[in-house]
Amino acid sequence: MNNIPVGILGASGYAGRELCALVAAHPQLTLAFATADRRRGETVRVPAPLGVAGRPTDVTFVATDDAPLGDAALVFSALPHGASAEWSRRAHEAGAKVVDLSSDLRPGHLTSELLATLGARRSALALTSAGVSAERRAPTDEESSIPYGLTELNREAVRAAEVVANPGCYPTAILVALAPLARAGLLATGATVVADAASGVTGAGNSPREDLLFGEVTGSFRAYGAGNVHRHLPEMRATLGALGADVDLIFTPHLLPVARGILATCTVPVTAAPADALAVWRDAYAGEPFVEVVDALPSLADVQHRNVVRLTVLPVKGVRTPTLQVFAAIDNLMKGAAGQAVQNANLMLGLDETAGLPR
Amino acid sequence: MNNIPVGILGASGYAGRELCALVAAHPQLTLAFATADRRRGETVRVPAPLGVAGRPTDVTFVATDDAPLGDAALVFSALPHGASAEWSRRAHEAGAKVVDLSSDLRPGHLTSELLATLGARRSALALTSAGVSAERRAPTDEESSIPYGLTELNREAVRAAEVVANPGCYPTAILVALAPLARAGLLATGATVVADAASGVTGAGNSPREDLLFGEVTGSFRAYGAGNVHRHLPEMRATLGALGADVDLIFTPHLLPVARGILATCTVPVTAAPADALAVWRDAYAGEPFVEVVDALPSLADVQHRNVVRLTVLPVKGVRTPTLQVFAAIDNLMKGAAGQAVQNANLMLGLDETAGLPR
Amino acid sequence: MNNIPVGILGASGYAGRELCALVAAHPQLTLAFATADRRRGETVRVPAPLGVAGRPTDVTFVATDDAPLGDAALVFSALPHGASAEWSRRAHEAGAKVVDLSSDLRPGHLTSELLATLGARRSALALTSAGVSAERRAPTDEESSIPYGLTELNREAVRAAEVVANPGCYPTAILVALAPLARAGLLATGATVVADAASGVTGAGNSPREDLLFGEVTGSFRAYGAGNVHRHLPEMRATLGALGADVDLIFTPHLLPVARGILATCTVPVTAAPADALAVWRDAYAGEPFVEVVDALPSLADVQHRNVVRLTVLPVKGVRTPTLQVFAAIDNLMKGAAGQAVQNANLMLGLDETAGLPR
Amino acid sequence: MNNIPVGILGASGYAGRELCALVAAHPQLTLAFATADRRRGETVRVPAPLGVAGRPTDVTFVATDDAPLGDAALVFSALPHGASAEWSRRAHEAGAKVVDLSSDLRPGHLTSELLATLGARRSALALTSAGVSAERRAPTDEESSIPYGLTELNREAVRAAEVVANPGCYPTAILVALAPLARAGLLATGATVVADAASGVTGAGNSPREDLLFGEVTGSFRAYGAGNVHRHLPEMRATLGALGADVDLIFTPHLLPVARGILATCTVPVTAAPADALAVWRDAYAGEPFVEVVDALPSLADVQHRNVVRLTVLPVKGVRTPTLQVFAAIDNLMKGAAGQAVQNANLMLGLDETAGLPR
Repeated sequence: MNNIPVGILGASGYAGRELCALVAAHPQLTLAFATADRRRGETVRVPAPLGVAGRPTDVTFVATDDAPLGDAALVFSALPHGASAEWSRRAHEAGAKVVDLSSDLRPGHLTSELLATLGARRSALALTSAGVSAERRAPTDEESSIPYGLTELNREAVRAAEVVANPGCYPTAILVALAPLARAGLLATGATVVADAASGVTGAGNSPREDLLFGEVTGSFRAYGAGNVHRHLPEMRATLGALGADVDLIFTPHLLPVARGILATCTVPVTAAPADALAVWRDAYAGEPFVEVVDALPSLADVQHRNVVRLTVLPVKGVRTPTLQVFAAIDNLMKGAAGQAVQNANLMLGLDETAGLPR
Repeated sequence: MNNIPVGILGASGYAGRELCALVAAHPQLTLAFATADRRRGETVRVPAPLGVAGRPTDVTFVATDDAPLGDAALVFSALPHGASAEWSRRAHEAGAKVVDLSSDLRPGHLTSELLATLGARRSALALTSAGVSAERRAPTDEESSIPYGLTELNREAVRAAEVVANPGCYPTAILVALAPLARAGLLATGATVVADAASGVTGAGNSPREDLLFGEVTGSFRAYGAGNVHRHLPEMRATLGALGADVDLIFTPHLLPVARGILATCTVPVTAAPADALAVWRDAYAGEPFVEVVDALPSLADVQHRNVVRLTVLPVKGVRTPTLQVFAAIDNLMKGAAGQAVQNANLMLGLDETAGLPR
Repeated sequence: MNNIPVGILGASGYAGRELCALVAAHPQLTLAFATADRRRGETVRVPAPLGVAGRPTDVTFVATDDAPLGDAALVFSALPHGASAEWSRRAHEAGAKVVDLSSDLRPGHLTSELLATLGARRSALALTSAGVSAERRAPTDEESSIPYGLTELNREAVRAAEVVANPGCYPTAILVALAPLARAGLLATGATVVADAASGVTGAGNSPREDLLFGEVTGSFRAYGAGNVHRHLPEMRATLGALGADVDLIFTPHLLPVARGILATCTVPVTAAPADALAVWRDAYAGEPFVEVVDALPSLADVQHRNVVRLTVLPVKGVRTPTLQVFAAIDNLMKGAAGQAVQNANLMLGLDETAGLPR
Repeated sequence: MNNIPVGILGASGYAGRELCALVAAHPQLTLAFATADRRRGETVRVPAPLGVAGRPTDVTFVATDDAPLGDAALVFSALPHGASAEWSRRAHEAGAKVVDLSSDLRPGHLTSELLATLGARRSALALTSAGVSAERRAPTDEESSIPYGLTELNREAVRAAEVVANPGCYPTAILVALAPLARAGLLATGATVVADAASGVTGAGNSPREDLLFGEVTGSFRAYGAGNVHRHLPEMRATLGALGADVDLIFTPHLLPVARGILATCTVPVTAAPADALAVWRDAYAGEPFVEVVDALPSLADVQHRNVVRLTVLPVKGVRTPTLQVFAAIDNLMKGAAGQAVQNANLMLGLDETAGLPR
């Protein structure tokens, strides 16, 4: 199956442009439209994504209002939070499947009103019960409504879904890091999990902001959104809860003088230290094409322009409570946004999950 | 008192050069000698340190063996760990006071053999009993031996000392962040304190190493020395213990694509959340010339080239255990090394503590 | 003379903030007002400029319309090009001396209408006839009108002026590099001078622009304003002409992934190669407090946060036309903007030229 | 033809690693050996080159002395200048074709002694007489000896060669920029061409050097090798001469705080300004797969990780001599080293010129 038409809403932001590049170079997808209200009428040359063979393509933006939603088999929405849900609804109504990259449809954000208008029931998180290595089976009605598209945790529900909520960038790194512990029952009730994470600047989008100018960011480093109040917490809490963990997550994001990439350093007290900690993750992600469980501490350079989570685990020495540290790196625009969106779209369209994605 | 001669051992590294700059611009110190074995005979122009009025000075390095130790009223040793203690001993023997910037004389590193050769008794940490706002009093014999020169925690002992162990860069940020909680008795026994910190590259020195080349560091970010095994842990544990805290500290350093600066993000469970958390730090550091307790999250840009610790505190929302986060930023070469060394030297020489230091 | 009140129009941009910092730390100036229309009412903490002893100051912005122009002995205008001339006129009318940092009053930009409204005659460039090491003498009427404030070329006219046009950042580096050759008559008529220069991003101001976001600038490099059409050309041509040179200048700016600093590489055919090229510059700038003629190739790191031009000269080998290369580095916000503005203000107010300036 | 074995001498440097990546992902090449004396025995994971589909490969370095030269159909030598020629000779003697990335075999460097030992006659530059759009024809004996592998200028000679001298990175950008003018006879005899170019740090290799540490390079910019004495001048002069141009080239390299990429800004007086300057380049490079003649000023970001020269041309305004500026950007490790080496190897092995190369 080739030349499947897909559309992109909000194509001029960083995630939107990466989606354009991935779709243009995808062996089986073709770009039906790309919208960008402020830049409508403009034609931009989109290079092939690094890590994928392909040639540059010219993309001409149309206004979102003018997008021929019905022409697309699947629509990606990279519109801003708040505006995205309504356009996902319209695209779905027009007959397209939808991957929504905003937070609008994610656990903890989706309102019952919105669910009603979307005409869909939805579980907070539609996880396959037997975990990531579960046999493939048909998802339940509930699961197939609007699953949380962290693909590795929720593959079968994504495959069957009409609409998928693509995860946030930080949650992708942190949940892939923590899920095996949750599944293995190694997280004590009430334990405090500290996830300090740092992101490149593209995570904040390309709308002009003084605090994101080169002169403000270069040579510096700071936390932001501190106090455990970041927009990404609800989806992380919901997912950990769905995985059976009853922990207190403390998540603190930081801004790096780097264009792209996220590193999450997760400090996790465990009920018992596994003899071979890394084996827990190796087993959990055996066969996963986009998870790299490695011996060395991952760096951003290891994952930039690649649709992977790269992680390692170390036992913490010199403490009374058995504790592990999980270090997970992703490219925030790839596995943290556009790449994972294509990964989900591949499943939803019956394609090979890895098609058109750089590893 | 002016033109006090001081010497610098190991003057060609980053900390050593910063010391040269500070000494050259200092209103009351004069540079007696600066050693650099591999670059002996070389003359370098040392700019005035940013933040201090002054003019560039030419410094000619001599071999460490040729340093006229006895000419100096005080010697700074910025020699490598392992080599520094012996030279501090020789400088002391030659009649100079000593500020040793290596880890050799810090709590957890100093051996009894070395103590014996240094001819000094020494407490693991010679803290004034009444804390940072204590009245000035004569230190005990014990305190005056080789105090740990985190000036704000140990001012009177430093003032009276012949030899001071200058703290590590990370411990300076983290201990200034945590000390008020320890003193206030807010740290529960056995609690786990997570200190994730990130440093600019000058923290690793200027000896050529492939992993510190520009092409390897730019655009990336990674943890290092992970698993709670970093060289700076003993001095932090000893100091927290001396302050009365019985906690498990988990410290993880990260390497930033930045020249200078450290940000420490400390997540600390407390026995009870203070109504006004920031007030604890404001009170603890009232009147301190080099501690800035602020409302906003500190960034590296706020502290670069300045001899300060800048910090803020936030209560952590949405968790069952009352928890605070302390964010502390320093310049690793200033308050984290050379600046603090001069701050200590000022006290040891009877000068104004702030003389010649950029704020 | 102390506590001379000065005002700053357009104080929230990069140059304006640097001016706030310099004025706040200046031993004889005091800040009467600082305007910033979009941020009026906001209070910002301005750190002491690096390189100058001083403490942070709080500055509260007022609207430009509300600025008590008459309260200031001197007003700096760092308003945008186009808007600045009219406010300089008003400030002058209100009795203040004026240093205008915009291009509005510079050679090639000032219109006769504006000159009329400013009530001033003005030479294209009011140079002292005997060059930079000229004896101090009273300037002519013509010279005292609105001199071009490249201080080293025009000191006496600046000293006597009511209104000064502060030079652009690129022209400061390039003209200080080329002036000695022009004065020495070494530039052949019709010769082509190639000035390729690269600037840090603060040169473009801090108004939010997508192309100046960190993610767009980091890791890249490009020319801009190419084709010999940059706004700074008229003032460079006029100044070279006034210095007696009849050359064709080709100036091409480039954007560096750096916060601050300009390096200009000037390739200059000469009528005859001096035996000791560097001596021409050493002689021309002997005694100049803010020009460093050095042996080594200057880097941005050499000059950042300092009010200097640092330059060197090399003969070009292997070519038929005798040719020199002059390499000149400045900090675009210091000697290229705010520092030079204070240098000019010092002269206009009868203060020591170097007061309050980092070297 | 698949699975053609190739070897890499000097595989642990930046160019060598890029070669490993390109060979590992190449559809028709297979890695026979990779040498790295200091790191022999070490296994590194080489990621697929960005821009080429592929998976990471493990490469184990052997000592250069242990390389089975005869097993390879073609050997790339990325050994240091000075050492490379002798190993190229040995590889050739062992029966392999050779692409030598060092300067040893390039015009102006190759000695007659070396030529003798290489058993080959060699022209200074073996250009096809009719230029880049020449009909394919058999090269002369002379041409086939050791052509200068700037592929676009010398395709047929490369195709027939046993040994090719891969060009330097700067010359690649500058010669592709200037060649069409030379061929068109637009360069006046004795004219001065100014080529100011700036390179990312990987151009200097990955041997540890203090001046290339992150802390020394970040935030700065400087010229180096100034005075028109850089190692790359002989090959540029020889090539321009072979193209019929008798000009004086002034080449000045600069060091950027960037990992990879070169931008060359070439200012060129011409005998007559073409009505449509860009058309000269469009015509010269019509059909070239790796030259992009564009309207906009190229940036490093446009070319990083791609085997292309991207360039544009502008007429210079306001000067008496008709003058053009050519702006050319390349990735110094791709089109400037490893990519061009593979491009040449493809031709030498009878493969499609674009095989395995990112565009």
